[in-house]
Amino acid sequence: MSHNTFGHLFRVTTWGESHGPALGCVVDGCPPGLRFKLEDLQVWLDKRKPGQSRFVTQRREDDLVKVLSGVMMDEDGETMISTGTPISMLIENTDQRSKDYGEIARRYRPGHADYTYDVKYGIRDYRGGGRSSARETAARVAAGGIARLVVPGVTIRGALVQIGKHKINRANWDWTKVDQNPFFAPDPEIVPVWEEYLDGIRKAGSSIGAVVEVVAEGVPAGLGAPIYGKLDQDIASLLMSINAVKGVEIGEGFASAELTGEENADEMRMGNDGKRIFLSNHAGGILGGISTGEPVIARFAIKPTSSILTERQSIDADGHNVDVRTKGRHDPCVGIRAVPIGEAMVACAVADHYLRDRGQTGQQR
Amino acid sequence: MSHNTFGHLFRVTTWGESHGPALGCVVDGCPPGLRFKLEDLQVWLDKRKPGQSRFVTQRREDDLVKVLSGVMMDEDGETMISTGTPISMLIENTDQRSKDYGEIARRYRPGHADYTYDVKYGIRDYRGGGRSSARETAARVAAGGIARLVVPGVTIRGALVQIGKHKINRANWDWTKVDQNPFFAPDPEIVPVWEEYLDGIRKAGSSIGAVVEVVAEGVPAGLGAPIYGKLDQDIASLLMSINAVKGVEIGEGFASAELTGEENADEMRMGNDGKRIFLSNHAGGILGGISTGEPVIARFAIKPTSSILTERQSIDADGHNVDVRTKGRHDPCVGIRAVPIGEAMVACAVADHYLRDRGQTGQQR
Amino acid sequence: MSHNTFGHLFRVTTWGESHGPALGCVVDGCPPGLRFKLEDLQVWLDKRKPGQSRFVTQRREDDLVKVLSGVMMDEDGETMISTGTPISMLIENTDQRSKDYGEIARRYRPGHADYTYDVKYGIRDYRGGGRSSARETAARVAAGGIARLVVPGVTIRGALVQIGKHKINRANWDWTKVDQNPFFAPDPEIVPVWEEYLDGIRKAGSSIGAVVEVVAEGVPAGLGAPIYGKLDQDIASLLMSINAVKGVEIGEGFASAELTGEENADEMRMGNDGKRIFLSNHAGGILGGISTGEPVIARFAIKPTSSILTERQSIDADGHNVDVRTKGRHDPCVGIRAVPIGEAMVACAVADHYLRDRGQTGQQR
Amino acid sequence: MSHNTFGHLFRVTTWGESHGPALGCVVDGCPPGLRFKLEDLQVWLDKRKPGQSRFVTQRREDDLVKVLSGVMMDEDGETMISTGTPISMLIENTDQRSKDYGEIARRYRPGHADYTYDVKYGIRDYRGGGRSSARETAARVAAGGIARLVVPGVTIRGALVQIGKHKINRANWDWTKVDQNPFFAPDPEIVPVWEEYLDGIRKAGSSIGAVVEVVAEGVPAGLGAPIYGKLDQDIASLLMSINAVKGVEIGEGFASAELTGEENADEMRMGNDGKRIFLSNHAGGILGGISTGEPVIARFAIKPTSSILTERQSIDADGHNVDVRTKGRHDPCVGIRAVPIGEAMVACAVADHYLRDRGQTGQQR
Repeated sequence: MSHNTFGHLFRVTTWGESHGPALGCVVDGCPPGLRFKLEDLQVWLDKRKPGQSRFVTQRREDDLVKVLSGVMMDEDGETMISTGTPISMLIENTDQRSKDYGEIARRYRPGHADYTYDVKYGIRDYRGGGRSSARETAARVAAGGIARLVVPGVTIRGALVQIGKHKINRANWDWTKVDQNPFFAPDPEIVPVWEEYLDGIRKAGSSIGAVVEVVAEGVPAGLGAPIYGKLDQDIASLLMSINAVKGVEIGEGFASAELTGEENADEMRMGNDGKRIFLSNHAGGILGGISTGEPVIARFAIKPTSSILTERQSIDADGHNVDVRTKGRHDPCVGIRAVPIGEAMVACAVADHYLRDRGQTGQQR
Repeated sequence: MSHNTFGHLFRVTTWGESHGPALGCVVDGCPPGLRFKLEDLQVWLDKRKPGQSRFVTQRREDDLVKVLSGVMMDEDGETMISTGTPISMLIENTDQRSKDYGEIARRYRPGHADYTYDVKYGIRDYRGGGRSSARETAARVAAGGIARLVVPGVTIRGALVQIGKHKINRANWDWTKVDQNPFFAPDPEIVPVWEEYLDGIRKAGSSIGAVVEVVAEGVPAGLGAPIYGKLDQDIASLLMSINAVKGVEIGEGFASAELTGEENADEMRMGNDGKRIFLSNHAGGILGGISTGEPVIARFAIKPTSSILTERQSIDADGHNVDVRTKGRHDPCVGIRAVPIGEAMVACAVADHYLRDRGQTGQQR
Repeated sequence: MSHNTFGHLFRVTTWGESHGPALGCVVDGCPPGLRFKLEDLQVWLDKRKPGQSRFVTQRREDDLVKVLSGVMMDEDGETMISTGTPISMLIENTDQRSKDYGEIARRYRPGHADYTYDVKYGIRDYRGGGRSSARETAARVAAGGIARLVVPGVTIRGALVQIGKHKINRANWDWTKVDQNPFFAPDPEIVPVWEEYLDGIRKAGSSIGAVVEVVAEGVPAGLGAPIYGKLDQDIASLLMSINAVKGVEIGEGFASAELTGEENADEMRMGNDGKRIFLSNHAGGILGGISTGEPVIARFAIKPTSSILTERQSIDADGHNVDVRTKGRHDPCVGIRAVPIGEAMVACAVADHYLRDRGQTGQQR
Repeated sequence: MSHNTFGHLFRVTTWGESHGPALGCVVDGCPPGLRFKLEDLQVWLDKRKPGQSRFVTQRREDDLVKVLSGVMMDEDGETMISTGTPISMLIENTDQRSKDYGEIARRYRPGHADYTYDVKYGIRDYRGGGRSSARETAARVAAGGIARLVVPGVTIRGALVQIGKHKINRANWDWTKVDQNPFFAPDPEIVPVWEEYLDGIRKAGSSIGAVVEVVAEGVPAGLGAPIYGKLDQDIASLLMSINAVKGVEIGEGFASAELTGEENADEMRMGNDGKRIFLSNHAGGILGGISTGEPVIARFAIKPTSSILTERQSIDADGHNVDVRTKGRHDPCVGIRAVPIGEAMVACAVADHYLRDRGQTGQQR
């Protein structure tokens, strides 16, 4: 259980449950001298925030992030400057509906971690999933906001590329559309399809899985290491650490199983400007665990929300057969809100490898 | 670069390149009192060994493992007993053909880590891929041999489930067939299909990707942790650390994107014997990062071998355009030999979480 | 800088400066099922709290600890039960006197970390020493309060054994006296000596060093590891991590340099009750890095407070010679308040090794 | 037990016992492009080697180090160039006298780790102390040889400053004398005193403790971190990891307990050349955990060798009272050979912090 810290030089520790007073994280290893305003962090939390459309949970949380340490305020009273010491951030839980948990407190909801928690810990906070609650991810997103500042010139963006069997048309990909629909869809044509489909899912009290793609542009070549500290390995590890994620791939991913060596090779040429050019990016920006300078591309699959209205067979902690139906406010497709979370995880992995490569001193900036 | 160690309590450090005198690993954290013979480790190395069929590299290596520390010899002069101190294992490189590397020493082979190595390190051992060589995996397989002994009653087996577009028929799955064909195929009917297909690939000097599935049975419920120390996260991280792996999934994996909550829920019932029964295993044996007691199921995709006979466009270290054609003895499908490697990685992850959960003392055994 | 976490399975991350809104820590790896009340933690913070006698800093802080996560409240509304998830604790800074730091903001106070901070970070929070402030230790003491609960039956107590040249008479050692004087002195006869001596130091605006001894009784035999995970090594590391500590010793410590093998050997005999008896404890309860079951004994030396009223020669950030005199509320002997801090560090080290040995599952409790 | 790795970016894993075929280490994180010959490492092993005078153990070991990985050979066939991959080094055990251990196999030698090993592991390699054997330190010294190359311009030297009650006269300190006597004494006048004293100890089959001092010059200012990653903390941890070490101090160390703030302050002035000058170095080159640029000074106390000819009371594994007398070839004062070991540990700590600060890329060199 002592594993709520990730990263080697850019280290993030998160804490908190959905039903305590607050949750948060400590970002340790942030280089000194980074300048940012609270709104530079809040923008990412707002993107992840519940209650923004009918396609996500109706729980209402302001998700306002506070910075408790690790910064000095500049003279404008607004700009914070990192000092190189741990940045502690806190987000209060405001919408903890008091309700009767009596019924589900001892029942194991299928697909949830209820049963495994009880086996492992012998005690379980039944109010909202404990650490496995999606609320924990708010802390990661705050940490990702800091991580984005660490590597100069990097841009990290995510999009939803699949809901159920409905995939986007990659030929329509347009980053400017992503924030103009409730799905973070890069393909405007898929939006009405998803709307109709998800409305059906939602009204049926059902849920559906999804696939998210994250692209990091501007990652300098040379980050990562050949095998156990592979950049793709660390990205995979962090994406897989998000609750409900069941698969991760880099570049061509599972599709590379169907490619020949000729098809998969990213050929190179010298450009007229003397720069090295990759003619394709099947590798997803990483070769031998080390970044090539091309966009780093990662995808991950999110299973359908386990909380559904349909009764499912289960057992309770006392060993009785029961049927479980999960009432409450849930995301019909948790994949939607996973977009900013995936971005944050990739940002943290890239920041970590950047510092391993370049060091942490304030002198070199 | 300082990241050739993995695991938190069961810790493995590997070292060595394909063209040095030897390679090996140090297994730190092995509990005391485990009993094994050299052949119990060698059997796994033999499974990974090159040159065993026409479908894998013709490089000849005996891959004999030596144990240099961490054990006492029992009175039979054969059985080793772990003492709880680091187990150092060494495998000599015997088949290092001397050849003229002059030509490729400064050329970047597409799909290889040549370019990224040069960017990162400014120096590169061009003789065989350095740490990214598949030979490094022999050390992992040796470590996996120890890991298998740590958790009483666990069985970890892998199989090849896809080559190119040709997938096995899961209805034919038969573990007893896996070691009876050169592909580790669990479906006897796919064998002639793959033989014909791979012969074509091989004769064309081409290569093809593949998918491997690893199943761990007998993993006790309760191993892992909710988020950052998820058992699936650590398995994903280690599988992704294998060279050429581009995707990892657990249970339904990417297919879960297309499932509804009703379809994906693993229902439970009490068995007549008072045991808890899962009626399905879409989760792949892990819920909320913690093992359920059901088989742990992981799959990973391996890209096609980058070394192919067809010329590909590239550049060299001096910034000239060149065309590269990789002669030598290569695997037409590296996915085949990845089967025992994947098994080893899953074994190490399970052993590590077992020790985190149960502790490392000799007293409790 | 990314090193504000310590411990391997019982992991503590601290954050916060003396002049921000709050400071705190996250305790990760606490086993589930521990029961405690807030007052069980507060008692240790009160012991460390400033302003309790004229011999410590007159800064006034309530140092009230809040628990934000990782526990469930029992039905009595008072008893917290750990759930195995991270325990986040927060202590507000209440007494941040606003004053003009203009003068010292750019001057390097001798003995302080001002100069080295500027060299390292290129930026420095001059308001109170940043992370090197003694206030950071409040978070450690809170973490130590949790750590004390982890190992059943362990008692960890500290005492001040030397101020300046004035050492206690060990023949007078009486644990019951420690909390009955403002110095945590175990020897009542030294109290008037220290009072008179420290009054002189205090009135002169000077400061003086000290030595603290911590004794952990009830540590089970078998915790630790032979070399790099030695229990004494981890204790030494954590004690040396306390600001102003310049030396650490275990058992006989530096005195062992003057002992012969005959004198230093802790002989053993079987007791009448069949128990193993050590006839002496020169080793300080640790042999070969592993606990013997005898009391674990550690001592550490604290340098005199660097903040003194006498002018000292120094330079400023602009490279000018200046003379520095540190006004403000300071401890004439920081060693006094270091007693509960040292206890907390030993408690954390013992808890960590206990979990490594016994595991973290909730099942075994 | 899984703790045979130290360092965060410059990571060393050691393995091996005194009575196996070999021992060694893996140095992970060494930057690429370092150039050295085997003799550059061997020189340090020779310094630690047994059998060089009558004052150390008469065991005969060549201690020839082999480099198995992580380097390319330069064209001269002699100079190795680090490639940034793990450097595996191996030292064969050549002098393993076969003898009858039957008698001591089950007896607990006082002062040794025999009893604690049995408690912890339930199994013990009685042939020579297992990992607690002084032979393990050969691997550290090899690692230290690499570490010395990492930080440009650094010089790390050690000396013996006390044997029993006989301390050197610091006024006589002369580094050029250290290698001209069998004690690594920097004070020529103490040599005859120690010779006579140690001859007595040796002939009596007794042993005696000692104190070693290590000085690192040329450590750039700015290495380390304020609290948990203090440079002095990491040095203390590594020195305390050496078997038989019972105390560690930095700068004034325990003597600082007797100093006032005025005496202990290291005043500063600007030099005529515009450089910052410290007028003293009570701090031992470290303030607030961060190097000042002044020499880093550490001392450690080594207890007397536990193996002595005089019978001591003890028990055996079966719970019988026994008397133990340790025959064999032992160091009358293990402190002597601890000098190069201490140097190696300081070198590793400094290299690690240098890389944390400056990064590990090959680009910046």
